Amino acid sequence: MPAGPRATAESVPISDVELDDDFWTPRVETNREVTIAHQYDQLEANGCLANFRRVARGATADETSGGQEGDSSGEDGAFEGPMFIDSDAYKWLEAASYVLATGEEPDLRERVNEVIELLADAQEDDGYLHTYFQLVEPEMKWTNLAVMHELYCAGHLIEAAVAHYRATGSEGLLDVARAFADHIDRQFGPDGQNGVPGHEEIELALVKLYRVTGEERYLDLAEYFVDARGQDPSPLADELANVEEIAGADFVHHGQTAAEGARNHFLRDGEYDGSYAQDHLPLREQETVEGHAVRAMYFYTGVTSLLQERDDEELWTAIQRLWENMTTKRMYVTGGIGSEHEHEGFTEDYDLPNDTAYAETCAAIGSIFWNHRLFELTAERDYADLIERTLYNGFLAGVSVSGDRFFYVNPLETTGDHHRKEWFYVACCPPNAARLLASLERYIYARGTDGETLYVNQFVGSSIETELGEDTVALTQSTAMPWEGETNIKFTHDDPGAFELRVRIPEWVTNVEATVNGETIAETNVPSASDDYLSVERTWEAGDEVALSFSQPVEVLAADPRVRDDAGRVAVRRGPLVYCVEDADHSVPVETLAVSDPDDFDPDPEHDPDLLGGTTVLRGEGTASDLDTWTDSLYRSVDRVNRTETEIVAIPYFAWDNREDGAMTVWIPTT
Amino acid sequence: MPAGPRATAESVPISDVELDDDFWTPRVETNREVTIAHQYDQLEANGCLANFRRVARGATADETSGGQEGDSSGEDGAFEGPMFIDSDAYKWLEAASYVLATGEEPDLRERVNEVIELLADAQEDDGYLHTYFQLVEPEMKWTNLAVMHELYCAGHLIEAAVAHYRATGSEGLLDVARAFADHIDRQFGPDGQNGVPGHEEIELALVKLYRVTGEERYLDLAEYFVDARGQDPSPLADELANVEEIAGADFVHHGQTAAEGARNHFLRDGEYDGSYAQDHLPLREQETVEGHAVRAMYFYTGVTSLLQERDDEELWTAIQRLWENMTTKRMYVTGGIGSEHEHEGFTEDYDLPNDTAYAETCAAIGSIFWNHRLFELTAERDYADLIERTLYNGFLAGVSVSGDRFFYVNPLETTGDHHRKEWFYVACCPPNAARLLASLERYIYARGTDGETLYVNQFVGSSIETELGEDTVALTQSTAMPWEGETNIKFTHDDPGAFELRVRIPEWVTNVEATVNGETIAETNVPSASDDYLSVERTWEAGDEVALSFSQPVEVLAADPRVRDDAGRVAVRRGPLVYCVEDADHSVPVETLAVSDPDDFDPDPEHDPDLLGGTTVLRGEGTASDLDTWTDSLYRSVDRVNRTETEIVAIPYFAWDNREDGAMTVWIPTT
Repeated sequence: MPAGPRATAESVPISDVELDDDFWTPRVETNREVTIAHQYDQLEANGCLANFRRVARGATADETSGGQEGDSSGEDGAFEGPMFIDSDAYKWLEAASYVLATGEEPDLRERVNEVIELLADAQEDDGYLHTYFQLVEPEMKWTNLAVMHELYCAGHLIEAAVAHYRATGSEGLLDVARAFADHIDRQFGPDGQNGVPGHEEIELALVKLYRVTGEERYLDLAEYFVDARGQDPSPLADELANVEEIAGADFVHHGQTAAEGARNHFLRDGEYDGSYAQDHLPLREQETVEGHAVRAMYFYTGVTSLLQERDDEELWTAIQRLWENMTTKRMYVTGGIGSEHEHEGFTEDYDLPNDTAYAETCAAIGSIFWNHRLFELTAERDYADLIERTLYNGFLAGVSVSGDRFFYVNPLETTGDHHRKEWFYVACCPPNAARLLASLERYIYARGTDGETLYVNQFVGSSIETELGEDTVALTQSTAMPWEGETNIKFTHDDPGAFELRVRIPEWVTNVEATVNGETIAETNVPSASDDYLSVERTWEAGDEVALSFSQPVEVLAADPRVRDDAGRVAVRRGPLVYCVEDADHSVPVETLAVSDPDDFDPDPEHDPDLLGGTTVLRGEGTASDLDTWTDSLYRSVDRVNRTETEIVAIPYFAWDNREDGAMTVWIPTT
Repeated sequence: MPAGPRATAESVPISDVELDDDFWTPRVETNREVTIAHQYDQLEANGCLANFRRVARGATADETSGGQEGDSSGEDGAFEGPMFIDSDAYKWLEAASYVLATGEEPDLRERVNEVIELLADAQEDDGYLHTYFQLVEPEMKWTNLAVMHELYCAGHLIEAAVAHYRATGSEGLLDVARAFADHIDRQFGPDGQNGVPGHEEIELALVKLYRVTGEERYLDLAEYFVDARGQDPSPLADELANVEEIAGADFVHHGQTAAEGARNHFLRDGEYDGSYAQDHLPLREQETVEGHAVRAMYFYTGVTSLLQERDDEELWTAIQRLWENMTTKRMYVTGGIGSEHEHEGFTEDYDLPNDTAYAETCAAIGSIFWNHRLFELTAERDYADLIERTLYNGFLAGVSVSGDRFFYVNPLETTGDHHRKEWFYVACCPPNAARLLASLERYIYARGTDGETLYVNQFVGSSIETELGEDTVALTQSTAMPWEGETNIKFTHDDPGAFELRVRIPEWVTNVEATVNGETIAETNVPSASDDYLSVERTWEAGDEVALSFSQPVEVLAADPRVRDDAGRVAVRRGPLVYCVEDADHSVPVETLAVSDPDDFDPDPEHDPDLLGGTTVLRGEGTASDLDTWTDSLYRSVDRVNRTETEIVAIPYFAWDNREDGAMTVWIPTT
């Protein structure tokens, strides 16, 4: 463990990486070609761009009338959509910018520029930009951060601007974002309004803005927002007491108005309880991950970003404590987080119901963001491991195999009535998935800040050409992952360079074989957690080749017995993939399946090239309870239960709900 | 199965039976001496009697001001308590009357008479009696049956009156009840108001009233209320639309006003859905048990009571269908019913969560009431079996071993934060338990309506002297139940009488030995459901003795695999008792316990006379997962899970939460 916070690694620019992967490339292509285009159509259809056009045209509050769900009366009408709808455009801009960073795409570039121009036109002279308040309640700006998401939208604008600047070098969107950030900097802080965003996001965005601009005051402002949270009294408490004053709080989500929802989420027995938005205690004092999971992830990501820039032992200790709590007590085996629907968030230690799991796709994405910063801060394997686990399971289940249907909620068990949708009214998840897939390059490699280390963290076929210290490093990674454990890394740069290559040995690996230029450098069981990276220090030159083979045995997993919902059940994992059983592969209902002896359960992997574009399934021997024996009684002696041998076929969890409707479970009962 | 509805058996008057049972007598004594006295004190403390006194004194609406929770401003103040508080007095009168039926109790008799006099004074000249409306909103009588519980209270008044009349022969309370019933009969019906009670109860009460008065119009009115339910449009729908007009709808329960609760319970996507109160379809068309479980039980009890009096093949078919649905798809192994807290009711087939089970004590009691009528109607064992299962488990857990603490909610698993309470603001459960315990005699014996059959349904030590046809039958039952399976029945009547003795062979019995006067009449395994009653036809005379021995092996139970919450788990039953494991008996947390091989799990019964007044515990070999192995990870390979052998000690489910706080589970995981 590091002695304290320090950035020890950094991502390489995504434009330095080119994907070429059997598993991921088709998904990323669909994301570019289908999802991002579809997302733009949504911006037109749901009124998001129309709002900006109204503002740009100078429509005033007098011409408009409220922000109700379904209020879509054309460009001459009122504000359309929820109060955070601006963020849809920003997320699209961010995803599109990543595409521009790695390809030509002239049509997309033109469309992006049009939207940027629109935003610039809509922005007020003082930098303010939030179409709801501009159109409907200009006098109410910054009066209700608890509900109204102004700072949240600002954060997404900044993220988009940074992505666009890095992708194109053009400062058009960055200027808009900076002007808004400067406005916010004037509005809030020790000498201004004492405010805390109800939904975190601005913190991580301001650190990004600092990095491209070098302006310390953005970092100061991020630090201000981190430290202002969790103070007593909280400014959010007063805002909630007066929430009815904001007409926008009438927006309906999950069957309740934003005002009702806020009261439900922030009040306990009539008293303010900020835990929904991590505002119950200063982060330094927090012991457990609490509240709305996406908010929590964005917040911790912001704090960890800050720690990459500024030393703060107390904050770092808190962040480690929260990570421990989440990963050892409040996380699904898929990496999914958030046990409960109503507040979309964390509940109690070990409370991880499978059928009513929330495990929002956005929360998985947020966890990847957070763990990405944690890796950069520490260069430790655990964080890259969790990115892998979440990427292939908790996140990837959120996207259909076809790449154009999305889960908001990711249960680990269902009777068959839960299906992906094309879009959502509160459309946080599809654009979030789009920006993650469009920047997948970011997670594969990293450079040591010493300029002497190159990390290979994720096994995704790709080429990289990047600067490392004084050298230019280029290599091509080809891999059979996630289906098989073979990976080949071949260097292609012109000038030899001396550095340490560190290749992650995933947590699930039990045996590693590695050669350099055909010579064995490692052939070993992996007995301990210290075998985290395969390290080779040498002068690397074109043609040098590292061949890796990771064992991928099928693992039968048990859960901590305090996770009552998994008691008496096992899950199956192979390599990075958590598996599940689905009705589509069985002649009996999956809820009747059981494993007789977990210690002897040893299903065989079998790659089926025709299944869902090529999928390795696991086939093992189990039993099925004959439902005919259960017609007259719910309960009976175990010696009067008829079980017949049957084959259990497991598919990767991410692949479920891509065929006919049916039941699914990750945790298979034992008998 | 009977060809159709007909009463084939009837209970004997409770005054014909005298309890003398090691297991039950102490509980019934505590009920008489502690609970019923305590219940009366509550009537004084919570304003229930004060409300009646105010009405009797002629206090008007002008002197009073609303019915908010906690509104307790003395007898000169407003109405106190929830709008159904009158029913507390009626349930107390009913329980007290059962006590008067079987004992002298002059002090109690005097107190009962005082309350009856008070009710008579409070009753209006036209028979109306409901203190909330009389004190607060007299102009709003009968305008909101959906929420306001007038007919519910009337039903409890009638039940109390019938019990008091049968116990004492005095007609004072019966006159009050008849006058109110006559008022209701004038108000409602084909020629009057088209009304349906939001909470059923009046139906079963009117059948009782018919039986003591012989007045057919009470039966007609019961039938009217049964058939009026589930019609489209429902009168309840209009009442809900106008619920704010009733000030009493401001009463707060479960953190919401009655009006809010009613909208939550009765509206789905803004449309009226009556299933909460079984008002979604005519009962004849209902396929599944739906909605609030206590309402459902009271309704089905009323309908079944009606079927005892009037033939109706369609209703009878529906009732059987609902019973099948409940017992084979929606019932806990304890006999508890109601899976969900928010609406205190049924959800979907096989949805039976253990930790969030509602399984309200009142619903178990209602199920006993319903099954009691079903037995009388059919003389079939299944219903008496379910009474036994519910009595010893789902009901009895609701009462502390000390007899004076109560559960409202009966989970089958808890981490240790659920405990019995002395009383509840909405105090339905303790008085309901009190009236059941005070009339336990009712469930033990029954007479065939042919006058030639005597049923012994429950094994509870007692003497009975009753009329059977032309004969007087007297016998004494002594039994070792529930701990052991030995029961002795000795006849004591003077004149010999020829009749059939039918002794229930409980569902859990696998082997029966029976002798009459020492001669073996049965010694057999019980292989099939047709072995439902041990039948002996002869002339019985004083000194005749039937000795029974039922095997009581420990049964390891599995649940239907569609009950996902029990998958991979087993429960343990011995005789009528379902068992559970509790922290108090283990040196490791009970959530770490598991059974290795359910087929080989064979715990030994051991009677501990010092444990909770004498309890047979079960001791078996299991394993415990070492929590020290789970500090760094929530999930791990089963072959890396350390389990150590440990003794599993199970206690009867009814006995849990009578010692130190701790976790409990009925369903033990397998490994």
